[in-house]
Amino acid sequence: MTDTKAPSPGTPPITTVEDGGPRIRTIPEGDNVERLVCPDCGFVNYENPKIVVGTVATWEGRILLCRRNIPPRKGYWTIPAGYMELNETTETGARREAMEEANADLAELRVLAIYNIPRISQVQIIYHGKLATPDVAAGPESQEVAFFDWQDIPWDDLAFPSVHWALGHFDEVREAGSHPPFGNPPGDFGDMTR
Amino acid sequence: MTDTKAPSPGTPPITTVEDGGPRIRTIPEGDNVERLVCPDCGFVNYENPKIVVGTVATWEGRILLCRRNIPPRKGYWTIPAGYMELNETTETGARREAMEEANADLAELRVLAIYNIPRISQVQIIYHGKLATPDVAAGPESQEVAFFDWQDIPWDDLAFPSVHWALGHFDEVREAGSHPPFGNPPGDFGDMTR
Ligand SMILES: [Zn+2]
Ligand SMILES: [Zn+2]
Repeated sequence: MTDTKAPSPGTPPITTVEDGGPRIRTIPEGDNVERLVCPDCGFVNYENPKIVVGTVATWEGRILLCRRNIPPRKGYWTIPAGYMELNETTETGARREAMEEANADLAELRVLAIYNIPRISQVQIIYHGKLATPDVAAGPESQEVAFFDWQDIPWDDLAFPSVHWALGHFDEVREAGSHPPFGNPPGDFGDMTR
Repeated sequence: MTDTKAPSPGTPPITTVEDGGPRIRTIPEGDNVERLVCPDCGFVNYENPKIVVGTVATWEGRILLCRRNIPPRKGYWTIPAGYMELNETTETGARREAMEEANADLAELRVLAIYNIPRISQVQIIYHGKLATPDVAAGPESQEVAFFDWQDIPWDDLAFPSVHWALGHFDEVREAGSHPPFGNPPGDFGDMTR
């Protein structure tokens, strides 16, 4: 799960381009918001919020976590999650990420939560569901993957605030039969001190 | 609500640029997916799915609809909805769109549905809630705005499939106490014959 600008294929390097590409901040004709425009070719780069999709996935009640092998927060634990790609649904994206990061095959999924991290213009759509099989293995973006009982979750070594939120909300659903989707904790927009 | 590529400020003209800007489809170094690259300045345009936010809003049980004043589907009726902008949350985006399109001030909102239109890489997050006041008025993108009793909804003149879905799901929540969020109708991905 990615709360900060990760060097992912889905992440546009728009605000860091200095030696070429769209880099002049101006209001294009017919628009009402500032955009980055390329002074060399005139291309206007319309930036949009990005969608992260992920899953709290279990096998016999134990929760699947992945230890990140890439920045940001390399070495910390996350649920399988990542940027949605073009022409997939939020659910197929969540399934693809689980397969990429943990070789995990998910059974039926349900929406758990919608989180907003407006500082980085990110919307996270998180599912929960059971694995189809317990056969998991670390993909290239994971150092290791493992199943955790609730009391063994490495709470101090979770990668992002929204991993905490998702695990807590999953536990609410499991224990109390509460009704998703959940949202951010009140007043908490996922800003991290780094 | 926008199921097709509308000429909105949030819509990148990436696939229509022919005389400049990113227009060569290739796999950039270190990437694994084809992107559009500008042969003039080297800029890589990472395309991402886009988020539409909207609301089924009511006053004393009657539903607020807006008749579109812009293509696509100009003259047809929609719920207030549009592309999410940077640095807002899905909820503040839905409130902004209701204000822009219908001068509508929304009271408390709840998530109604998450719809996926993968053909155009669009995710729609739809809320439902009551208006704070019945004072509404057409904004620049609306020809008119009006409140409808359920039996008076102009079903044949709704702008997009997802407007049908959202109204139906809203009615399920209102009548039967079903639990959102809903998703697409099974097997229906919002493709329109035009
Ligand atoms: Zn350029
Ligand atoms: Zn260029």
